[in-house]
Amino acid sequence: MDSAPDYARQKAADFIAQLNELLTIPSISTLAEHAPDVERAARWLVDDMRRIGLRAEIHRADGYLPLVYGEWLGAGADAPTVLVYGHYDVQPADIADGWGTPPFQPTQRDGRIYARGALDSKGHVIAHLKAVESLLATGDALCNIKLLFEGEEESGSAHIYQFVRDNRQRLQADVIVVSDGSMPDEKQPVLVYGLRGIIQFEMTVTGPARDLHSGHYGGNVHNPLQALTEIMAALHDERGRVTVPGFYDAVRPITAQERDVLDGMREWSEREWHAVTGAPATWGEPDYALHERSGARPTLEINGMAGGFFEKGFKTVIPHKAWAKFSCRLVPDQQPATIAGQVIDYIHALTPPTVRVEVTSDWRDAAPGVVLDYESPSMQACIRAYEQGWGVRPILTREGGSVPVVAVFAEVLDGDVVLMPFGYKGGGAHSTNEYIVIEMFHKGIQTALAFYDQFAALHSGAD
Amino acid sequence: MDSAPDYARQKAADFIAQLNELLTIPSISTLAEHAPDVERAARWLVDDMRRIGLRAEIHRADGYLPLVYGEWLGAGADAPTVLVYGHYDVQPADIADGWGTPPFQPTQRDGRIYARGALDSKGHVIAHLKAVESLLATGDALCNIKLLFEGEEESGSAHIYQFVRDNRQRLQADVIVVSDGSMPDEKQPVLVYGLRGIIQFEMTVTGPARDLHSGHYGGNVHNPLQALTEIMAALHDERGRVTVPGFYDAVRPITAQERDVLDGMREWSEREWHAVTGAPATWGEPDYALHERSGARPTLEINGMAGGFFEKGFKTVIPHKAWAKFSCRLVPDQQPATIAGQVIDYIHALTPPTVRVEVTSDWRDAAPGVVLDYESPSMQACIRAYEQGWGVRPILTREGGSVPVVAVFAEVLDGDVVLMPFGYKGGGAHSTNEYIVIEMFHKGIQTALAFYDQFAALHSGAD
Repeated sequence: MDSAPDYARQKAADFIAQLNELLTIPSISTLAEHAPDVERAARWLVDDMRRIGLRAEIHRADGYLPLVYGEWLGAGADAPTVLVYGHYDVQPADIADGWGTPPFQPTQRDGRIYARGALDSKGHVIAHLKAVESLLATGDALCNIKLLFEGEEESGSAHIYQFVRDNRQRLQADVIVVSDGSMPDEKQPVLVYGLRGIIQFEMTVTGPARDLHSGHYGGNVHNPLQALTEIMAALHDERGRVTVPGFYDAVRPITAQERDVLDGMREWSEREWHAVTGAPATWGEPDYALHERSGARPTLEINGMAGGFFEKGFKTVIPHKAWAKFSCRLVPDQQPATIAGQVIDYIHALTPPTVRVEVTSDWRDAAPGVVLDYESPSMQACIRAYEQGWGVRPILTREGGSVPVVAVFAEVLDGDVVLMPFGYKGGGAHSTNEYIVIEMFHKGIQTALAFYDQFAALHSGAD
Repeated sequence: MDSAPDYARQKAADFIAQLNELLTIPSISTLAEHAPDVERAARWLVDDMRRIGLRAEIHRADGYLPLVYGEWLGAGADAPTVLVYGHYDVQPADIADGWGTPPFQPTQRDGRIYARGALDSKGHVIAHLKAVESLLATGDALCNIKLLFEGEEESGSAHIYQFVRDNRQRLQADVIVVSDGSMPDEKQPVLVYGLRGIIQFEMTVTGPARDLHSGHYGGNVHNPLQALTEIMAALHDERGRVTVPGFYDAVRPITAQERDVLDGMREWSEREWHAVTGAPATWGEPDYALHERSGARPTLEINGMAGGFFEKGFKTVIPHKAWAKFSCRLVPDQQPATIAGQVIDYIHALTPPTVRVEVTSDWRDAAPGVVLDYESPSMQACIRAYEQGWGVRPILTREGGSVPVVAVFAEVLDGDVVLMPFGYKGGGAHSTNEYIVIEMFHKGIQTALAFYDQFAALHSGAD
């Protein structure tokens, strides 16, 4: 019988075909009309889990989008247990946003597959599922395996926290592998030991009771669009720091030792920044390197803003309302509740008597930042797995994105949490023309297989 | 035979029915898909002009929306000539914006007719047309009459300036009556002797080459939405003054004498401000009264702004682009070209190296502000006409809106220009639920008739 790695290599074309199947399903969790598609994707996953030999089921409750859970406990009670987490829901995508090909018709070119979710994060989900298939098909599995795939990650992970708490015993594992995210270079794996948290806000500025003629009232009514720009502009100083009082109070400083570790990312991250962003110049807190600004520092970002007339042509209106959506990325030890209060209080303090402001934050969307111990044995096993799967020692880093469930796993379950990204950072997560590099997908499967090996060896005391 | 005023009273219901007919035509000049409706409205007007006895025709050239011109010169070469200007095109309107009834299905309730254009400005156009019908049907016309109705006022009056210059001889008149605008109270007519000019701008802030994930790049890319708020917020100081260098240099100060004249509006304008705007507090330059801020001071207003994700849900994106549309209301003696240059230069000066900004101003949309001589005989005839039509002496004022053609008439034609509004300021021009007060429409017709009388008397030396 073949080894699991050989099996995975032989099945490469099948695995890609299966990934493409899942990518055709527009499982957009943030848009209610796509709930049936999220359901369809969950069904696809649970069917495949059962086909390859897992005991699998869909978990749901009122208003949930489905959680897919599968397990194989055939390695026995003495063997270590690995829990893998991923998410199969995706961000919204519309070809009109500037996609070269329809976002839910996976298109292969130049060694990549273009589709919404290819990178974030169906590629990760399928890589892990196919690693498990390879282990079970070849009898190579030395660990018990638990797979947990979420359908609400992109819409704020409303229910998985409670699910993890309610199923503490069932999910118990010696290590929790959270597989999502990306690396700044296709050839250079990166091991993420820190993630930022997030908290989201919606804000409405209301002035007059209805839209007014800018000729009649321009000059004596505070234009809500202008008030919005004044308030939003006041949330940063000229050095790019957030001005909300107390915002940085709890931020854990970067130690000299950690700064050295993180410095491994400096060059990669600068090169990648220029290759991917195409922005005219870097921006942000001058006392921190680019990778520190995005990995270890908190932010406040406007994600959307609108008001008045912005179609073709002109309408000389003072709109009665203006909107903004914004979010803060958080780092340890900022508490989402504290930050939400500080931001909301400050915006109210900035609001002049000439307009009314409503600003809210949805608790179900909030997650704290997290930093994992990069010296733990599990993390060391993970480093060796990447050395096998990619042929290169991974760089350690802190990632700017948020995987809200990581903090919950770290809090509720006993095992170490490790992060295992297989994607390329330039692959357009949350943007147009998202893609996965096919070679990285296959290396991801090999890395996952190597990790099971390494982790089993670690547990048995051998190496 | 009846007098013209009696004829108009007898035909009141017919006149309203004809107004309603014209209001059903969505002659939105700013949206290209409505060009056939603008054409239809022009056709309706030229047909009615011919029916009542004018020689009338539609003027057009490539890319024009039609100008409707009609004349009756039967009073003879020695009689004075009155040219009336109005516009029959309207602002965009959609029931989804918050209209109680469909904007192009005129609906009568509480003594008002609700429809887009009822106030701005089909009510004015029909009032004048029906005044002329009354004169011609009764043989009461002592003046030669010229009617010029524009179809591009709401989209920037792209061609009428050239039309007036090219037809200087044909349009020559002893007085030019520009009928548009509104008064702050239904019972109190207001004679406008000044109008603000306008210049419009479009602005794009571009940062990264495409939308980015706010987790990956938040903190080291300048978010175009943030840059937009920073630039726009910097265009006013905390006292509501525009900060563009040189912006106020050419502004003609209000003399003590004019301030006294304008003071007749203070109470009306304050009462009306509170009744109409519903805003929580007044705003603007503290050294000027409300009616001075909107009538005699220039402004810069954001009319529309957009960027990123602003639908339901969240998308944690750093958008690659953000837009704003804004406009300046101008007063004498600000030159649109100078102001455009100052605004554009200042925005470029405010633009940090981290983003790119493109800001443009379309010359075809610009108009200077104008102040007419409120002591001229024509204006005095107009005052007497309102005393007859409304039964109240009109207050003199300067209006905040722009009727771009006024400056052209004043420059090109020899006659005095007078303004003759019949609308109520709370009637929702450029907003939802626009309406005309039916009684004011009829008073408008009587005022127009009285003006022909007064003006003929003025010319013949009698009174």
